[in-house]
Amino acid sequence: MLSVTILGNNSAVPAFNRHPTSQVVTQDGTNFLVDCGEGTQIQMMRYKIRRGKITHIFISHLHGDHYFGLIGLLNSFNLLSHKQELHVFAPAPLQEIIELQLKVADSQLCYPLHFHTLTGPGVLVDNAKIRISAFPVTHRIETYGFLFEEKEGKRKLLIEQVRKHRIPISFYSSLQAGLDYITSRGEVIRNERVTAPPEPGKRYAFCADTRYDEGIIPYIYGCDLIYHETTYLDNMRDKADLRFHSTTKQAGELARKARVKKMLIGHFSSKYAVLDQFEEEAREVFPNTEVAQEGNTYEVH
Amino acid sequence: MLSVTILGNNSAVPAFNRHPTSQVVTQDGTNFLVDCGEGTQIQMMRYKIRRGKITHIFISHLHGDHYFGLIGLLNSFNLLSHKQELHVFAPAPLQEIIELQLKVADSQLCYPLHFHTLTGPGVLVDNAKIRISAFPVTHRIETYGFLFEEKEGKRKLLIEQVRKHRIPISFYSSLQAGLDYITSRGEVIRNERVTAPPEPGKRYAFCADTRYDEGIIPYIYGCDLIYHETTYLDNMRDKADLRFHSTTKQAGELARKARVKKMLIGHFSSKYAVLDQFEEEAREVFPNTEVAQEGNTYEVH
Repeated sequence: MLSVTILGNNSAVPAFNRHPTSQVVTQDGTNFLVDCGEGTQIQMMRYKIRRGKITHIFISHLHGDHYFGLIGLLNSFNLLSHKQELHVFAPAPLQEIIELQLKVADSQLCYPLHFHTLTGPGVLVDNAKIRISAFPVTHRIETYGFLFEEKEGKRKLLIEQVRKHRIPISFYSSLQAGLDYITSRGEVIRNERVTAPPEPGKRYAFCADTRYDEGIIPYIYGCDLIYHETTYLDNMRDKADLRFHSTTKQAGELARKARVKKMLIGHFSSKYAVLDQFEEEAREVFPNTEVAQEGNTYEVH
Repeated sequence: MLSVTILGNNSAVPAFNRHPTSQVVTQDGTNFLVDCGEGTQIQMMRYKIRRGKITHIFISHLHGDHYFGLIGLLNSFNLLSHKQELHVFAPAPLQEIIELQLKVADSQLCYPLHFHTLTGPGVLVDNAKIRISAFPVTHRIETYGFLFEEKEGKRKLLIEQVRKHRIPISFYSSLQAGLDYITSRGEVIRNERVTAPPEPGKRYAFCADTRYDEGIIPYIYGCDLIYHETTYLDNMRDKADLRFHSTTKQAGELARKARVKKMLIGHFSSKYAVLDQFEEEAREVFPNTEVAQEGNTYEVH
């Protein structure tokens, strides 16, 4: 199961009890942290996200509202005697910033911290359960979105067929992995006769801070869920463009063209106290839109 | 009037809804920020502290729980088109950290930001209303406490005496400033006859993170109020010593020897869910002790 929990849905200046960007993508019990604005570790406590379960952190870009909370989190891991490896994926200068702050505090980390520099589109994590990749977006400084693709699960046993062919239980996991069964008489039972295809893996894309950019469509095409920023309502297109951000309808347009199934919107400007109009405007273009609410967990269906 | 508002009373790892160190010292409408742990700007919003009223920020040392919130605050000032000068007093490396983070984000500040390096004991601010000085304390890295000394107010008119001598209203402010009055016939009315001495200025000391250190007594002697850390209860003296922190009774002992009038305690270790015992233990040594509660404003009497 793939899901995303929103820890912050606001743009740079915290306002109206909304926090800067951070979210936790959870897949099969593993937590991946995406961006880490100021106060992220406090939000994690509020929403019962276990800090210790995080092994990978992805930072989209080095505007403060996307990473000022990272050093505090790394520091807390240290004070809590965290032991497991931590991998941080980010644009290059982050490593210098973090290492300078650790040096000044005379802090030696008690866990292995690995920095991985983002340099362009590419796969960051690829294991039996998930593939995570970065894709460039269009912002004032170097910025990346992240695509989370669950691997296909196991094939499903058609249990009546399996029994009919008297396949032993010890071979079930081989069947789930796609192998054919060969009987003691040498007869081949084709896998397709006794299993059904697995559920396709779910796909979620975090599109970071970006101008309207059709260039990202190939990366997010057909996603089950995306998170796209809508810093402004649609009457602010000029300002959005000037500041390399998007409006509600631009996000909706992109979701529509990318034929995604559902869109969460966030990164709201601090000038807006109420968010209803964001949802209304985006839905005019892409109906299956929802405001990403802090503390909510959205399952990817 | 001198007062202090507590924004964070916890040690490094946020816990039990307590935040890292930050407090606002207010004197006659001016706000001075002392330390700026992660989330300080959010705490300011929660407790209705106007960010824009802050012109001076004092950072005691460069452990993260005392300054990780600064870059976010400086950044928000920028996004909010803050215009007035801001003075930051801190150990030297802070400037490099902040400037690196601004450079990486391609941010130019829209207000003048002045760094002042703390290098030893000395006066940092001295104007008609207040004198603020730094004093060294004993911690794992270079660390300073800060002493806030209100200047004496104006002399008080003894209004019956003033009228008896037929001193014109236009001369009242001169009387308050200590001048003698000379009548049209050349008679000198000595100021002391028609005014009373002003209230003495109040004194508050923030003692930062420190081991028990009698060396700070000369700086804080006789203060109306001090804030002293009590990271641990008194059964943890060894750990406190090892980590350059203080216990409840050590803080009480220092307050007693320094003959201060009242003590606030804070910087509680994240291992303690409940704080009652801190107050009880410190009071055994120094009765006029109070736990510094987040969101509370303590007037200096």
